[in-house]
Amino acid sequence: MKRIYMDHAGTTPMRKEVLEAMLPYLTDRFGNASSIYSYGREAKTALEDSREKVAGLIGADAREVFFTAGGSESDNWALRGIAAANGDKGNHIITSSIEHHAVLHTCQDLEKQGYKVTYLPVDKFGLVDPEHVNNAITDETILVSIMHANNEIGTIEPIAEISKVIKQKRKNIYFHTDAVQTVGKIPVNVNDLGVDLLSISSHKIYGPKGVGALYIRKGTKIKPFITGGAQESQRRAGTENVPGIVGFGKAAELIGKELEKEHERLSKLRDKLIHGIMEKIPHVRLNGHPTRRLPHNVNVCFEFIEGESLLLNLDMKGICASSGSACTSGSLEPSHVLLAIGLPHKIAHGSLRLTLGRDNTEEDVNYILEILPDIVSKLREMSPLFAERKELPKNV
Amino acid sequence: MKRIYMDHAGTTPMRKEVLEAMLPYLTDRFGNASSIYSYGREAKTALEDSREKVAGLIGADAREVFFTAGGSESDNWALRGIAAANGDKGNHIITSSIEHHAVLHTCQDLEKQGYKVTYLPVDKFGLVDPEHVNNAITDETILVSIMHANNEIGTIEPIAEISKVIKQKRKNIYFHTDAVQTVGKIPVNVNDLGVDLLSISSHKIYGPKGVGALYIRKGTKIKPFITGGAQESQRRAGTENVPGIVGFGKAAELIGKELEKEHERLSKLRDKLIHGIMEKIPHVRLNGHPTRRLPHNVNVCFEFIEGESLLLNLDMKGICASSGSACTSGSLEPSHVLLAIGLPHKIAHGSLRLTLGRDNTEEDVNYILEILPDIVSKLREMSPLFAERKELPKNV
Repeated sequence: MKRIYMDHAGTTPMRKEVLEAMLPYLTDRFGNASSIYSYGREAKTALEDSREKVAGLIGADAREVFFTAGGSESDNWALRGIAAANGDKGNHIITSSIEHHAVLHTCQDLEKQGYKVTYLPVDKFGLVDPEHVNNAITDETILVSIMHANNEIGTIEPIAEISKVIKQKRKNIYFHTDAVQTVGKIPVNVNDLGVDLLSISSHKIYGPKGVGALYIRKGTKIKPFITGGAQESQRRAGTENVPGIVGFGKAAELIGKELEKEHERLSKLRDKLIHGIMEKIPHVRLNGHPTRRLPHNVNVCFEFIEGESLLLNLDMKGICASSGSACTSGSLEPSHVLLAIGLPHKIAHGSLRLTLGRDNTEEDVNYILEILPDIVSKLREMSPLFAERKELPKNV
Repeated sequence: MKRIYMDHAGTTPMRKEVLEAMLPYLTDRFGNASSIYSYGREAKTALEDSREKVAGLIGADAREVFFTAGGSESDNWALRGIAAANGDKGNHIITSSIEHHAVLHTCQDLEKQGYKVTYLPVDKFGLVDPEHVNNAITDETILVSIMHANNEIGTIEPIAEISKVIKQKRKNIYFHTDAVQTVGKIPVNVNDLGVDLLSISSHKIYGPKGVGALYIRKGTKIKPFITGGAQESQRRAGTENVPGIVGFGKAAELIGKELEKEHERLSKLRDKLIHGIMEKIPHVRLNGHPTRRLPHNVNVCFEFIEGESLLLNLDMKGICASSGSACTSGSLEPSHVLLAIGLPHKIAHGSLRLTLGRDNTEEDVNYILEILPDIVSKLREMSPLFAERKELPKNV
């Protein structure tokens, strides 16, 4: 059976070139990058080369890039590190209600520690209003954390505008963005965005799992998150994951080169998929913004059905997709993002996220458009909700 | 030139079988372990299989093993997680003065947050006295953290005895041990040791870098360290590093099988190396305990010379060794461990750590015993301290 992978926002297959770049460091070049003998020096050189590549992808200076074990660690570090280092200046943090759980749950934990957190609402497309940020800032505000694009519905937030609002209000409020979903998909430049901290993940850009980075603008007052050895300029302890970091660097280098072309190609596939679904299937709703949207993201809700059953049926046809975010699977709660954009519980339960990647073709899109309507019909026929439905507008 | 790697306490080369086990997960089986489609399920199965293997190596139940990004994260989690979750019971922590920096620096940070920390002294061999632990416990004590064996001098601490002392005094004091240096080298069983938390690292047992685990005994009250998604039973957020974890599992399985044989073989090589050095080179001191010692650890101080110059000269002869701990290289401070066992600064500077591994042979040991005396003589000839020396006892 043909397998079509359309969960690239969840994770991506590692590129061949990335594995090739890693292999020497998984075998002969195994030295500890903090050692002074030759094995160690060659590891250190590889590390710094990767740092340049990752920095290059986000328009940063390499000295501002710190490797971590992934996006969640980066988010935790940004929030907890800024909170702990700037507690003397204030105790207020602003974020949005549709952040990744690595930000949301960390904010909730900081609340328990005595910090005050404002969770800004979003509009029906998932957009944060910069004016809301402006109004939420108090004398106590030390940090604003708004994601660059949402992992579920793909909405791209107005980060540069939010940055202007913050910095006009007070220069010493730090601004963090979780860019795990945008790096490698749309242009990301820390200076154009005006952010002080930015989280990246390797496995979302065809690099290895278990690696990420936190961009920290020079001069930012932040506490280390993992303390111990002197690695990463004494900011992040732990023996460096050299093979992983080398793979991350290679992935960053490669995705930067093809970003523009892939952006165009994926946007077209995405639009074809969205339009095809809306046309062929009744009672369906597009989640997220129609145009301010990640080029690879499709997120729709099918009324009267359960996302989980849909996923299992798609899987039986060889299609890998997601409902809500992969990170919360196992939970029966509907997605906090879909609730935040105003969907009722029962509709939010019927969500499907398809996220395209470099391995997907027009043929894949056609296959899904061929398969999906039947699966949805079949599931609706079994649904008591569908039988009892009132007449509803065809598409909302 | 022949290259002899003798820094296995710093890091180890990954085994071929480990890479082979990882490769499918670095290529085709790339699914997110938290997804419900087939790609995800196969990743999840691999994850749980590795958890069984790691648990097996330390005599734990698989449900008590939580994967992390490495030993430093495990140590940070144990200390910070217990402190944060048990602040209502007390604010006192007991540790030793020769812990790894991942424990020491974390304790220092906890002190800044208002916790009280007792740093127990050690004897001239680096041993912690269980009676000192007993005397240090107060009504406020919530955690004791003593390493299983020291990473620099190889001394094995009386963990089981310390556990008895703690639990006799009060059952609700948690006991953590950093077993990064012992797992895979000597038998480690969480029940025999009587610990509630235990840190492990993969790259010290011929597994991949960037992976580790924290053993958490059932019923232990601990806060998550990285918050976010629901991974690791909601205790450690972040997309699982499946290839890394699979490699870690394989490494754990393999090292467990050969532990006994390797223990015997390495102990012999170690003793040959120690006796050869003591015999052939004057003004040398063995650091650590003569018998309660890791089977692969040699640590000596050569008077009148600098460890760094020694390492560079050994490197030129193809020998990879360490001085102090790799994690603190770049620092000019002498090792805190050597100072804690009572060495004066100028002697502590002249330390050399050779840590043997499965790739080392008797031939390697002979080669070092042939090379080392000349290097030491040459360096001493250039040393003003050596020229000015008073008559000293030959070996101390």
